[in-house]
Amino acid sequence: MKKNVLIIGAGGVAQVVAHKCAQNNDVLGDIHIASRTLSKCEAILASVREKGAQKVEGRLEAHQVDAMDSAAVAALIGQTGAQIVINVGSAFVNMTVLDACIETGAAYIDTAIHEDPEKICETPPWYANYEWKKRDLCAEKGVTAILGAGFDPGVVNAYARLAIDGMDEVRSIDIVDINAGSHGRYFATNFDPEINFREFTGTVYSWQDGAWQENAMFEVPRDWDLPVVGTQRAYLCGHDEVHSLAANYPQADVRFWMGFGAHYINVFTVLKNLGLLSEKPVVTAEGQEVVPLKVVKAVLPDPASLAPDYTGKTCIGDLVRGVKDGQEVEVFVYNVADHKDAYLEVGSQGISYTAGVPPVAAAMLIAQGDWDAGTMRNVEELDPKPFLAILDRIGLPTRIRDAAGDRAWNA
Amino acid sequence: MKKNVLIIGAGGVAQVVAHKCAQNNDVLGDIHIASRTLSKCEAILASVREKGAQKVEGRLEAHQVDAMDSAAVAALIGQTGAQIVINVGSAFVNMTVLDACIETGAAYIDTAIHEDPEKICETPPWYANYEWKKRDLCAEKGVTAILGAGFDPGVVNAYARLAIDGMDEVRSIDIVDINAGSHGRYFATNFDPEINFREFTGTVYSWQDGAWQENAMFEVPRDWDLPVVGTQRAYLCGHDEVHSLAANYPQADVRFWMGFGAHYINVFTVLKNLGLLSEKPVVTAEGQEVVPLKVVKAVLPDPASLAPDYTGKTCIGDLVRGVKDGQEVEVFVYNVADHKDAYLEVGSQGISYTAGVPPVAAAMLIAQGDWDAGTMRNVEELDPKPFLAILDRIGLPTRIRDAAGDRAWNA
Repeated sequence: MKKNVLIIGAGGVAQVVAHKCAQNNDVLGDIHIASRTLSKCEAILASVREKGAQKVEGRLEAHQVDAMDSAAVAALIGQTGAQIVINVGSAFVNMTVLDACIETGAAYIDTAIHEDPEKICETPPWYANYEWKKRDLCAEKGVTAILGAGFDPGVVNAYARLAIDGMDEVRSIDIVDINAGSHGRYFATNFDPEINFREFTGTVYSWQDGAWQENAMFEVPRDWDLPVVGTQRAYLCGHDEVHSLAANYPQADVRFWMGFGAHYINVFTVLKNLGLLSEKPVVTAEGQEVVPLKVVKAVLPDPASLAPDYTGKTCIGDLVRGVKDGQEVEVFVYNVADHKDAYLEVGSQGISYTAGVPPVAAAMLIAQGDWDAGTMRNVEELDPKPFLAILDRIGLPTRIRDAAGDRAWNA
Repeated sequence: MKKNVLIIGAGGVAQVVAHKCAQNNDVLGDIHIASRTLSKCEAILASVREKGAQKVEGRLEAHQVDAMDSAAVAALIGQTGAQIVINVGSAFVNMTVLDACIETGAAYIDTAIHEDPEKICETPPWYANYEWKKRDLCAEKGVTAILGAGFDPGVVNAYARLAIDGMDEVRSIDIVDINAGSHGRYFATNFDPEINFREFTGTVYSWQDGAWQENAMFEVPRDWDLPVVGTQRAYLCGHDEVHSLAANYPQADVRFWMGFGAHYINVFTVLKNLGLLSEKPVVTAEGQEVVPLKVVKAVLPDPASLAPDYTGKTCIGDLVRGVKDGQEVEVFVYNVADHKDAYLEVGSQGISYTAGVPPVAAAMLIAQGDWDAGTMRNVEELDPKPFLAILDRIGLPTRIRDAAGDRAWNA
C-alpha cells in the first residue's frame, strides 16, 4: 500500500492527471505537482480548486523542479513524502525521474518511451535502449515501475492482454487510434508539435511474420469500420506499444494504425520536404542560428488552447485475431471519448484526457496494492481487469465488439 | 553620351548584368560591381573572366558598399567614374541609390519598385510613394533615371508601347508571365524567397474599368494558349508594371498574370496559413526571437543553385487589345527564353537571365544617347524600337503573334 502522488510535468496531460488524482484523493492522498515552470503548476492547481475536484480534504502543492536533475527529483520525493510518481513531463526526462524513484523507493509510472533529444526517432530495440536496462535493478530493490500507462501505450496494452486471455492462441494485434474530432483551426497538433512531428519523421517499424518490418510514413493506409466514428482511414505508424507487445507476444503480428486526414498529411509533407521539421539548426541570411522545428512549434496553436472549441469523438482500440477452441476468432476492444465532455470535466481536450486518466488508474492500483509489482512492468504484463474496472468508473469505459455483438466489456 | 557602368548588387541577376555588360564593354566602358559582400562581387567577376566575356580590353573591378548609405554610393560613383548605375540590389535600396545618382549626375537604372522592409506589400499609388516624388528633381538636374527596366517590369512595358503605337485606341493590356521550366527540386523560388513570397502575400491590385480592383492571391485564374509552352494556367497578381501602365494608359484595363502550378500554390498556401511567411518575429519556447520568413528562406534552395539543372523555357508577353481603322484588333508580343541556354552563356538560370539582360540594353541606349532622357522615365515612356532591337541582338528576341500569324517583331 502506497500513497501521496508527485506529478512531474505541467502540460495538457498533467492537467488531466491533477484533476483525476484530486477526484480520487481518498485513495491517493496528497497531490504534488512539479515542473520547470512553477506558475504552470500553480495554474493547474487553481483549475483543480476552481472545479472543486478534490473528493476529500487534502494537500495540493506546486513545486519547481528540473526533471533532468535526478538528485533534485529524489530530494523532492523525500520532501513531499510521495510514494507514487506519475511522470507526464517531456519524453526526455524518463530516465532521470526513474532513477530518482529507484533511489528513493517510490513507485514510477510514465506514459511514453524515453527519448534522446538529439535523436529524431528511436530505433530498435526501443524500451531496451533505456528503460529495460533498469529492470533487474528495480526487481532487486523491489521498486514498482509501470511503463507506458497512458492510453496508447497503456490502455491498449491492457486491451490486448484482455483479448489474448480469452483465446488459446493470438495471431495479430492491430491497434487503431482515430481522432474524429474537430478543433476548427487551419492546422494544429493535439499535443506538443515538437514531439508530435518527431513521431512521424522516421522509419515506421511494425512486427510482422516474426520480424521487424520497415515502411515509410503514410506508405501503408487501411480503412477501418469503427463503432460511433464510422469508416476512417488510418496509416501504419511506429508506436511505443508495438515494441513491448512484440517482445511479449512474438508469435503475433503487432501493428499500430493512426488516423490522419488528407489535410494533415499535406501540411506535414510540405513541412517535412522543405526541411522545416528538422531538429538540426540552420543559419539565416542574417547569421542567426535557428532550429526550424522550434519555429514551426512557435507559429502553431498551443494544443491546450484548442480545448474550448474541440468537438467530436475519439475511438481507440485493439483488433485482436486468434484461435479459440480450434476456431478463428476476432475481437475489437475499444473506448470512445468525447472532446467536449473532457473539457467540461477537467478543462482539457479529449487527446489529453485519454492520455491523462489511465496513469491515475494505475496509481490507484498501486495505492491499493493490485499493481504494486515491486519490479518493472509494461501494462500487458499486469492483470488488465482491475485497471479496466477503474477506467470504467473514472471516465474511460471499455467496450467490446465481436461475433456476439457490441457491448460493455464486463457485461 | 555616357560611359562606365557601376552595378549595385551581387545576386543571380547581377551575375547576368555583369556578363552582359562585359560582352558589350565596347559601348559601356569600364565595369564596376559593388555589394555589401565583396567576395560575391569577386566571384561574379571571376565567372566573367572564366567565360572570356569581355568584348574588348577594359577594367573589371569589385567594390564593397552599403547601398543603404547614399553618401557611400555617391562616393563610389565619384571614385569609379561611372556615369551609368545599374541597380539590381535588393528592392530596399532603390531610393538611396537613386539619391546618389541625383547627387552625382550619373544615370540610374533599376528593375523593380522600391520597397520598405517594414511593409509586407506596397499599397497604391506605388511608384508615386517613392520614385516619382523625385521626378521633378531629376528633370531639374537633367538626371536620367529609367525605372523598372528588367523583363517584367521593363521589356513588357516596351511591348505594350509597341503594340499601342500600332493602334488607334488601346482597350486592354494583359501581361502574362509563364515559367514552364523545371528545376527538379521539391520546391524552390526562382529569386530571393523573401522578395518572392512578399510579392504574393498582399492584396492583388489590377486596373479595370478605370479604377483599382482588389482580389485575393490565386482568386482569379485564367488559362492561356501560348506559343512554344502551350496552354498554361496563370493567376491575376499585382505587379510593378501595372502601376505605371495604368497611369500612362488609364483608358485601358491593365492586368498581370503569373503562372503557378498546383504544387507551388499548395506549398505557398500551407506556409502562409501557418504564419511561416510572416515578416513579424515570433518567440520560440526557448525564448529566441525569430522571423519565420527568414527561416523559410534559410531552408529553401539558393535560387542561383538551381541554374545547372534547370531545363525548359519561359514565355513572357503582352496581349494587347484595341482598335485599328475601326476594327477590333489584338496582338501578343512576346519572348521565349531557355533556361539551359542561359546557363551555358552566363552561368545563370532563365529567370535571372530575362531580368538581367534588359537593364544592360537600357544602359547601352543611355551610352549611345537614344534613351539618355535627362529626366525620370518608366520604360513605356521611351521609344521601344531601339530597345527591342538591342534585345534581339543580345539574347532576348521579340516575336509577335496576331491575325497575320507568328513572326519576329521586325520581320
